[in-house]
Amino acid sequence: MKELTRRSVLTSAITLAGSVTLAGLASAQTTPQVPDDPTKVQGRPPNELGNRSPFETPRRIASAVISLTPLDLLNGIITPSDLHYERHHAGVPLIDPNRYTLTLHGMVDRPTIYTLDDLRRFPSMSRIMFLECSGNSRWEKGQPTDTAQILHGLTSTSGWTGVPVTTLMKEVGVQAGATWVLAEGEDAAIMSRSVPIEKMLDDAFIAYGQNGEAVRPEQGYPARLMLPGWEGNINIKWLRRLKFGDQPFETREETSKYTDPMPDNSARQFTFYMEAKSTITWPTAKVGTMPARGPWEIRGLAWSGRGRITRVEVSTDGGLTWADATLVDPVLPVAHTRFLFEWTWDGSEAILTSRATDETGYVQPSRNELVSVRGTASFYHYNGQQNWRVASDGTITNYYAA
Amino acid sequence: MKELTRRSVLTSAITLAGSVTLAGLASAQTTPQVPDDPTKVQGRPPNELGNRSPFETPRRIASAVISLTPLDLLNGIITPSDLHYERHHAGVPLIDPNRYTLTLHGMVDRPTIYTLDDLRRFPSMSRIMFLECSGNSRWEKGQPTDTAQILHGLTSTSGWTGVPVTTLMKEVGVQAGATWVLAEGEDAAIMSRSVPIEKMLDDAFIAYGQNGEAVRPEQGYPARLMLPGWEGNINIKWLRRLKFGDQPFETREETSKYTDPMPDNSARQFTFYMEAKSTITWPTAKVGTMPARGPWEIRGLAWSGRGRITRVEVSTDGGLTWADATLVDPVLPVAHTRFLFEWTWDGSEAILTSRATDETGYVQPSRNELVSVRGTASFYHYNGQQNWRVASDGTITNYYAA
Repeated sequence: MKELTRRSVLTSAITLAGSVTLAGLASAQTTPQVPDDPTKVQGRPPNELGNRSPFETPRRIASAVISLTPLDLLNGIITPSDLHYERHHAGVPLIDPNRYTLTLHGMVDRPTIYTLDDLRRFPSMSRIMFLECSGNSRWEKGQPTDTAQILHGLTSTSGWTGVPVTTLMKEVGVQAGATWVLAEGEDAAIMSRSVPIEKMLDDAFIAYGQNGEAVRPEQGYPARLMLPGWEGNINIKWLRRLKFGDQPFETREETSKYTDPMPDNSARQFTFYMEAKSTITWPTAKVGTMPARGPWEIRGLAWSGRGRITRVEVSTDGGLTWADATLVDPVLPVAHTRFLFEWTWDGSEAILTSRATDETGYVQPSRNELVSVRGTASFYHYNGQQNWRVASDGTITNYYAA
Repeated sequence: MKELTRRSVLTSAITLAGSVTLAGLASAQTTPQVPDDPTKVQGRPPNELGNRSPFETPRRIASAVISLTPLDLLNGIITPSDLHYERHHAGVPLIDPNRYTLTLHGMVDRPTIYTLDDLRRFPSMSRIMFLECSGNSRWEKGQPTDTAQILHGLTSTSGWTGVPVTTLMKEVGVQAGATWVLAEGEDAAIMSRSVPIEKMLDDAFIAYGQNGEAVRPEQGYPARLMLPGWEGNINIKWLRRLKFGDQPFETREETSKYTDPMPDNSARQFTFYMEAKSTITWPTAKVGTMPARGPWEIRGLAWSGRGRITRVEVSTDGGLTWADATLVDPVLPVAHTRFLFEWTWDGSEAILTSRATDETGYVQPSRNELVSVRGTASFYHYNGQQNWRVASDGTITNYYAA
């Protein structure tokens, strides 16, 4: 910022009109022709579907089976639908909503096939909540330049709308003795998981709406299972079948893949909950270098599959001392929660860290605390604290990469 | 829905693989080639930016100076950013964020020019809230086929992020005696309004974020004024100047346009607040005809510039009797609030209506109640109840169009 005199305001106000037009802008995405004075050029009229400014190009980082949300570019708690992370096992199927069906069968009195219109007709519910891949965040330490997007971008928050699973369970008459439910997707992986019936009775729902509109194709269009707080892969997308039974179905994905090896060579199975986690999103390796000394606002996200975030603490000395961050309303259960922390960078080295506490009293562990219990053979359910190093020359890196 | 036998499940499961590929889908937006069995075709891999299903094509209805949000297609409370309503007075200017500045001057000790990076550096805030054009909804009665989008689509809700105006006021040292602030936009209309300083001190902020990312161009990119609960046009977009003074600036837009003619030939000026309003969004004229008799869920939106919605009542007999609708969490101040109401259509004529009450105790008036006070010469600030007629043949129309 700079102070100005009255003269400089006047000088600015009499800048002559630019002669640049908006023609050809769409094809010049990378080098938009900006008028010298936008007040002298009629702008584009209203249109049916808006676009981002050509100066704003947030993108997921995509590989063969995942894409990562640019957490370090975002503000607020809602993830734009086209930037919601992806994880699929055989690509995104193309499903005609007019031919889509969901079948409920197995230990039920009235096996039933529902159309999408059937699902939409039932009394509805909405919930703003996060989804997170169980493979989000890393047991390996990553690279110095790894960003929050690369390290933690497999989590996103949307507003979801749909029908409670209990509504359908009453309709089909689930039989006494049913204890597990097979949820199966209509993708080429026929992604399948077993869900304890207690979860279905508690808060499970089938979503057909996301952020005000239809669920996006990569999020399970036209309908998916939602199990609040549980690892992403069990929130079965493109849901075509719920089969009620009296034991887990031991699908490929829950025996060969989504288990957690422990130091004693046992493996934890059915580790559904995503525990409390947080990361600073600014300043991080994405920034590269601190722009200047002085006051800055540290910003980040915290979330827990167990409910509301009740506290986030920030440390600027690598966890020696902590102070409470401010949580931004609304703080919703099982949703990304924005935290803010005022900090003055004096030009000396700093190690920036956050730790989240949720409503169960659980506190996000340090990397060492987590590894001491879980070892290093796991791939899933890493939720250790994320440290970012600010060097005395201002360079910002992922602290763990040595 | 239909019940099924075990045999029909098996038959469905052994449907042979389709041979259709996804090639060419992008260019076949209107007639997507859907595989017979999506489980037999590898889907598209993850990508950098998602798209809607080709079967989902929500659109704003655009005319010369406005575009309308498709309220009757949406669920939840968040409006997708590319469907947020538009109202601009000389089109959408193209502004380079690297050249953008905001000037604070007039009755201040230290006139100052801020860059966008300056604004982003200050301690931030986020708020989920609606914006509504003061010209939303209609004094004229409209056409029978008018939808909720056409009648009420100039309102939308987003999550906004920015910096409180009070933060900048402290920086520049606003002088004693300053009572009004001129807010001026950088569009070709140089859209300008006077804001009482009390509002700036209360809850005004300058937003650079919308729904997690940068503000959209048509919403004021790179930064706009936000005055929670006040008519849309005073939330100046493309904000380039705040000038502090000791009287209203009587700009063109607040003398020749945004006033409310009253029956006694006086005119109300500075009618800032958007009062409580609601409309059913399903079933409405958009549906055309009730799909069937039986149980349905009436769905709608309510909102108030004065704070939280505390109650929504629904009538199915044109306002003779009312019953409470369910409000869906989260119910946030100055934000769209979703309401739901279970109803069984027995095949007879019905007149569906909703009325909202806000935390001040204000109750949305009927059309007649509103007209009895305000007359019919106004164009802005219509907030009467919206009636939808369901004829005995199921046809649904805008009730007021006779």
